[in-house]
Amino acid sequence: MKKYVYFFDEGKGDMKSILGGKGAGLAEMTRIGLPVPQGFTITTEVCVEYYKNEKKYPQGLEEQIEENLKKLEKVSKKAFGDSKNPLLVSVRSGALISMPGMMDTVLNLGLNDVTILGIVEKTKNERFAYDSYRRFMQMFGNVVLGIEHDKFEYLLEGLKKEFKVKLDTEIDCEGLKILVERYKKLIKKETGEDFPQEPKAQLKMAIDAVFNSWNTKRAVTYRRINKISDDLGTAVNVQEMVFGNMGEDSGTGVGFTRNPSTGEKEDYGEYLLNAQGEDVVAGIRTPLPLSNLKNDSLEVHEELIKIVTLLEKHYRDVQDYEFTIEKGKLYLLQTRTGKRTAQAALKIAVDMVEEGIINKEEAILRVDPNQLNQLLHRRIDPKAKVEVIAKGLPASPGAAYGKVVFTADEAEELGKKGEKVILVRSETTPDDIHGMVEAQGVLTSRGGMTSHAAVVARGMGKACVAGCSALNINTKKGIISVNDLVIKKDEFITIDGGTGEVFMGKVPTIEPKMSKEFETLLSWANKIKRLGVYANADTPEDAKKARELGAEGIGLTRTEHMFMQQDRLPIVQKMIMADTLKSRAEALEKLLPVQKGDFLGILKAMEGLPVIIRLLDPPLHEFLPNLEDTLIEVTTLKLKNIDSAELAKKEKLLEIIKSLHEMNPMLGLRGCRLGLLYPEIYDMQVEAIIDAAIELTKKGINVKPEIMIPLVSHINEFRPICKRTRKIADEKIKSAGVKLEYKVGTMIELPRAALTADKIAEEAEFFSFGTNDLTQTTFGISRDDAEGKFLLKYVEEKILEENPFEVLDREGVGELVKIGTKLGRKTRPNLEVGICGEHGGEPQSVEFCHSVGLNYVSCSPFRVPIARLAAAQAVIKRKDIK
Amino acid sequence: MKKYVYFFDEGKGDMKSILGGKGAGLAEMTRIGLPVPQGFTITTEVCVEYYKNEKKYPQGLEEQIEENLKKLEKVSKKAFGDSKNPLLVSVRSGALISMPGMMDTVLNLGLNDVTILGIVEKTKNERFAYDSYRRFMQMFGNVVLGIEHDKFEYLLEGLKKEFKVKLDTEIDCEGLKILVERYKKLIKKETGEDFPQEPKAQLKMAIDAVFNSWNTKRAVTYRRINKISDDLGTAVNVQEMVFGNMGEDSGTGVGFTRNPSTGEKEDYGEYLLNAQGEDVVAGIRTPLPLSNLKNDSLEVHEELIKIVTLLEKHYRDVQDYEFTIEKGKLYLLQTRTGKRTAQAALKIAVDMVEEGIINKEEAILRVDPNQLNQLLHRRIDPKAKVEVIAKGLPASPGAAYGKVVFTADEAEELGKKGEKVILVRSETTPDDIHGMVEAQGVLTSRGGMTSHAAVVARGMGKACVAGCSALNINTKKGIISVNDLVIKKDEFITIDGGTGEVFMGKVPTIEPKMSKEFETLLSWANKIKRLGVYANADTPEDAKKARELGAEGIGLTRTEHMFMQQDRLPIVQKMIMADTLKSRAEALEKLLPVQKGDFLGILKAMEGLPVIIRLLDPPLHEFLPNLEDTLIEVTTLKLKNIDSAELAKKEKLLEIIKSLHEMNPMLGLRGCRLGLLYPEIYDMQVEAIIDAAIELTKKGINVKPEIMIPLVSHINEFRPICKRTRKIADEKIKSAGVKLEYKVGTMIELPRAALTADKIAEEAEFFSFGTNDLTQTTFGISRDDAEGKFLLKYVEEKILEENPFEVLDREGVGELVKIGTKLGRKTRPNLEVGICGEHGGEPQSVEFCHSVGLNYVSCSPFRVPIARLAAAQAVIKRKDIK
Repeated sequence: MKKYVYFFDEGKGDMKSILGGKGAGLAEMTRIGLPVPQGFTITTEVCVEYYKNEKKYPQGLEEQIEENLKKLEKVSKKAFGDSKNPLLVSVRSGALISMPGMMDTVLNLGLNDVTILGIVEKTKNERFAYDSYRRFMQMFGNVVLGIEHDKFEYLLEGLKKEFKVKLDTEIDCEGLKILVERYKKLIKKETGEDFPQEPKAQLKMAIDAVFNSWNTKRAVTYRRINKISDDLGTAVNVQEMVFGNMGEDSGTGVGFTRNPSTGEKEDYGEYLLNAQGEDVVAGIRTPLPLSNLKNDSLEVHEELIKIVTLLEKHYRDVQDYEFTIEKGKLYLLQTRTGKRTAQAALKIAVDMVEEGIINKEEAILRVDPNQLNQLLHRRIDPKAKVEVIAKGLPASPGAAYGKVVFTADEAEELGKKGEKVILVRSETTPDDIHGMVEAQGVLTSRGGMTSHAAVVARGMGKACVAGCSALNINTKKGIISVNDLVIKKDEFITIDGGTGEVFMGKVPTIEPKMSKEFETLLSWANKIKRLGVYANADTPEDAKKARELGAEGIGLTRTEHMFMQQDRLPIVQKMIMADTLKSRAEALEKLLPVQKGDFLGILKAMEGLPVIIRLLDPPLHEFLPNLEDTLIEVTTLKLKNIDSAELAKKEKLLEIIKSLHEMNPMLGLRGCRLGLLYPEIYDMQVEAIIDAAIELTKKGINVKPEIMIPLVSHINEFRPICKRTRKIADEKIKSAGVKLEYKVGTMIELPRAALTADKIAEEAEFFSFGTNDLTQTTFGISRDDAEGKFLLKYVEEKILEENPFEVLDREGVGELVKIGTKLGRKTRPNLEVGICGEHGGEPQSVEFCHSVGLNYVSCSPFRVPIARLAAAQAVIKRKDIK
Repeated sequence: MKKYVYFFDEGKGDMKSILGGKGAGLAEMTRIGLPVPQGFTITTEVCVEYYKNEKKYPQGLEEQIEENLKKLEKVSKKAFGDSKNPLLVSVRSGALISMPGMMDTVLNLGLNDVTILGIVEKTKNERFAYDSYRRFMQMFGNVVLGIEHDKFEYLLEGLKKEFKVKLDTEIDCEGLKILVERYKKLIKKETGEDFPQEPKAQLKMAIDAVFNSWNTKRAVTYRRINKISDDLGTAVNVQEMVFGNMGEDSGTGVGFTRNPSTGEKEDYGEYLLNAQGEDVVAGIRTPLPLSNLKNDSLEVHEELIKIVTLLEKHYRDVQDYEFTIEKGKLYLLQTRTGKRTAQAALKIAVDMVEEGIINKEEAILRVDPNQLNQLLHRRIDPKAKVEVIAKGLPASPGAAYGKVVFTADEAEELGKKGEKVILVRSETTPDDIHGMVEAQGVLTSRGGMTSHAAVVARGMGKACVAGCSALNINTKKGIISVNDLVIKKDEFITIDGGTGEVFMGKVPTIEPKMSKEFETLLSWANKIKRLGVYANADTPEDAKKARELGAEGIGLTRTEHMFMQQDRLPIVQKMIMADTLKSRAEALEKLLPVQKGDFLGILKAMEGLPVIIRLLDPPLHEFLPNLEDTLIEVTTLKLKNIDSAELAKKEKLLEIIKSLHEMNPMLGLRGCRLGLLYPEIYDMQVEAIIDAAIELTKKGINVKPEIMIPLVSHINEFRPICKRTRKIADEKIKSAGVKLEYKVGTMIELPRAALTADKIAEEAEFFSFGTNDLTQTTFGISRDDAEGKFLLKYVEEKILEENPFEVLDREGVGELVKIGTKLGRKTRPNLEVGICGEHGGEPQSVEFCHSVGLNYVSCSPFRVPIARLAAAQAVIKRKDIK
């Protein structure tokens, strides 16, 4: 006959598929000789057959349960239904993957009007016994019998009124006895049957309830969303109850094998004598530190430490365990992998390698790359008590506090005086840069993850919360209102750009901290990873920071950010508004040395490493004041009858803004389209790059500039720009008489470019997937518009599993990355291919990039360590799969 | 030895690859016994070897030319360099594909100081002889010797001044003799050599010039752009000159084998006696109609008609021929396929089938589908003399004239009085519909092919020129200025929506005309084509028109156009501005019967045929007034200190407009995203469709509604909407107790939908590729922004071969259509797949749709005949390829 029930000593840790996660864990602890309250597991196969056969159990199951129950009575030396020494058990579900919506736990099963006497006797605590009984009835009534929880609560509340007490704990033993009787009546009324007194009947009903909970609507929905097969089934675990509240020789506690905050190897945990598990966390009595157990009369400390050390070695990771001491005897109730801070994760991983417990590959897999963010930015002190007043988009990580100011000028003024300020605006424009520079952080009520504020703040490494639509900013009155709360100018607020949260007042923040373990682990990662990790950097400072954090090149320098700086913007605006080619040329001539200066700094900082510089990308109107504001100004001037030069000037400006205005600027006149329409702009940029490179080469500095053309959809767009670029560059290099190599390549950020990559690779020497724009066009979603309006809802409602602007959409966008890479390399086998969208610093996306054979990922400087770690993990994970 | 030179009687029509197009044609006419001035062709292979061997001719070529020249002298009974009876020849290039940028023609080669005397003698016209001589020198000097054309012109102009005459024709024979001498000096000065007097030397130099012209920059560029291989090479044709100006027994003429305007089988052409070819077209003397030749003493009419009838039969198509009579002897100089009007093309194709000259398949291939447009819309009378004052986008075909009006109200007022008006606006909005209805046509200065004006006008079948940026519209002053021209209100203008042209005044237009041949040819097409041809129609009138023109279903009904009608817009706006779900529900309830009415009409008109109805697609702000106007109104009201209810109302409106405002509405909150956010809107639409279908079914009318969900990018967007739709529909059908079948499907208009079509087909019963939006997202180009700003330039400069919004881009967008179709059918083998973008009525795109196995194309009603014809051609062409 098929084996449907496993006693804990018959199973093993690797039998998860039939014993479920919990059952396999209990079996494993039993197998390695740990003291675990004994019991047995009914396999997942029973569940599968139950549903196959119209809810009939397989033949022989009943007998096997009976046998195992007998064995349990024998091992525990207790008996089901015994009035002296009753066996009580817990019944728990346990699928392969833990799943909300299923029946969780029934404790104290086996209690009835007879066995309660045995418990009273053994615990010497009548009140505890009856409290356990009424809790058992409540739990059983609700989860097994399906009676609404509220109906039990109603009786409980009524009783408290009668007894004139407020808390459950204030009900005395007599009260609880009355409650038990009332519960019995309730159950009779609701089910038409008496509360089952027979422990075996209780057990059978509880097992039925677990199996039936497999197909509740909530569980089915959860499985559908999480793509878990309906055919897995759940197991049922029946385990002897043990009690830590049987007197001063009993107790209960929790612990970690290492300190989960720091990673130090030390006793870490708490315990209470004569208590049950929930008392430790309830906070009524103050638990003692675990180290105290040493001095205790119980003499279990040594055993406990021996056991959990064994456990850690066995599971080869930090364990978070629960234990109970029943009358001097130690039991392990649970062990699981311990959660830890980033700092601890690093230390533990590195220490365990040094202790010979795990190898370097395993150590690398042990740290969640996303956690590293904690270590790289100033953050809210986890010990601080905080109250969130609003939440926006986490636009640029880091935490900062400062006085509220509403204009860039105020921010600059106060900032220069050394005061900390947060610049609060509905949205920022290039005119606000000087204020952003001096502010600790930026908070906006409009705009998304790619809004001006967000992009500029990320570039500056400054905290930013964007699109916080709950804020009602009234600049004139100098106040922000959030629901009923009013924040005045000069009051302090705190923002957390990593979570998007906004707080009142000064919330303490803590410094980023990079430990020696951080360096060690990342040095191991570097040896394993195959992907290059580049950084996106627009300034020499960013480039230096990126190099410090391990960047192996610059994957994206956005030249337009250089245009946006306050001293340059007027020249740029002049260039855009030029009536003639001549006046445009004049403006460009002024920009040339400025751009060259930028490139000198970046190329020098990245000596010996490639620097990919993208020519101007955004539509020109982004450099001009916005249409609405200008329209209001002109209307106002007109109505005031001020027919002055001022009006004429503003009208001219308005006309130009209107002529450049676009319905869908994202899909408009930008990127290479600008380069084809105004070749003189790209010419100037190419000159500046090559001039800078030549100057450095002459000084003996090895530079590797790569020029990147944005927004190409057709090889015929790329070809003429590439040709013109090479002509300018080659002539300059020749006349300078230096040896300087450079490349010309393109962004692949439009579906058409990916689909025709074989043609584009005929000319382009490298590809860089711009997955931000590629996601926008592949999905047909404007990120700026969507994130506030429907995209977050999409993620909440699981229409999309992830925000595709955060985690690369493998199915759609990823398919284009694959197609583009394959076609590109068909034409040019050694084509250098990378990505420079924000996905380049997101671990799942990095793994994808590795899996499709890209050469590098490029991300913001502070995400370089994350990408390095994720790249190494990708190698290791995929080796595992092989 | 290899044969490098073919005498005309040695070649054949199918030897184009070695003789070139022209040479093969001359050989073919010779072969079938037509009187052609004789000569020989030097093959393209010579050209190829010439370039292979560093511009050396292959061995033996010289001898072969010599031999053929001897043969020519013998056949013509003339001799090279003879003073009595000189042989003169023309030298022409002739590649497989005719190509600009190559040397075209040198006439009268063989003339020199000696042979000219023979010509004087034979023509009895000394002036003509010397004019021929100086022309030969000029042509030879320029194209063979490479002397700038201007230098000859300078001498010519100088001479005219000396002789005090204005026209070339006023120079007398003495003057021409002087000019010849001056030309000789010029040539000596420029080349250092005398003008070559030896005819054989002239010939050799001319042949060299032809071969060298194969590699001029212009020719190379042309080949690159048109993807013509550089390895084809050109042939050289050397042909005896004949002269129609040798007296009254000579003459020259041109003719068509059938009337190219009407298609009638009749004598059609003109001739002149004692004249050269160019005289017929120069207009100095009035040519006689060809039928006159009958009455002439020359007695060549019968022979000519016999010959050209033979030619037509031989080439199996209407021929456009040139002939010369030299001293009573008839020569055919050229024959080519005759160009014809749409009407003629139809008649000729059908007649030729009836005459047994061609079969039906050939007849179908003979008509250019695009030409049919001429027959379906009112158009500018081709006989009218017109002056174009501006050009915009050809947004909706048809020609119309009317008085200029600037507001919809004026248009309505005058229109209702029966006056013809053209509504001129910078751009139209839903508020203008009532004026558009009454206008003859619409002219806008802003907006593209998908602007409001364009889309609505196409829907109404009304002429529209959009985005005519040369117009400066001043509504206040009531004038339009175009450069220096000023057009006042109430003045007449004419627009041609098929070409985008705008004219002053009333230009006569002609009615569309559908002949019996039109019906015949399209009935043949229907039997051959395999693609279904559906129409896009938003009103019952459109649907009826479409059915008349042969539509086999409605592929796209845009429900939003129903929302835009003047009586509905206020309800729609109320719905959008609703504060509560309740007030939205009230507005929707009012819309329900209105929408139902629309569907009743369309479904009834299409009885028995499928009608695909798309649920609401555009962003809601499209139904509200525009942001800029409202901003100006609010600013104005504020400044005027009118703190009234009016201001409050406008401010509320502005707030809503702002909250709905999007950076990139094309990629914003629209389509199924709206349906997921406001399910009540789609619910109402589904109810209206199903209610209408049930009502008709009850009346015994067979209806086939198909409900289409727009802008799906992920199956998870489609699934819940589809489910909700089915629930509503099934309940209604069940409770009505009727048998009614319907389908639920989706647009594939985003790259991601195409890439994941296998998943989407799990739920969707049909796909309709929305290639307008798919082109926008695949290219990352906003059509509205691009067409005015860079797209036309792209096409002009051949960056793109075609405007991808007119002709489907096969390489990129087409690849997605292929992928989507293949994946969709992998999941659902019988999936119905069509396209409903504007490409559905464009012949090349229709052919593509056929080739990838779509089930149908859908286009605007007036393009249905075009699509039917194109679909049949696709079948025939591809059979040919097999």
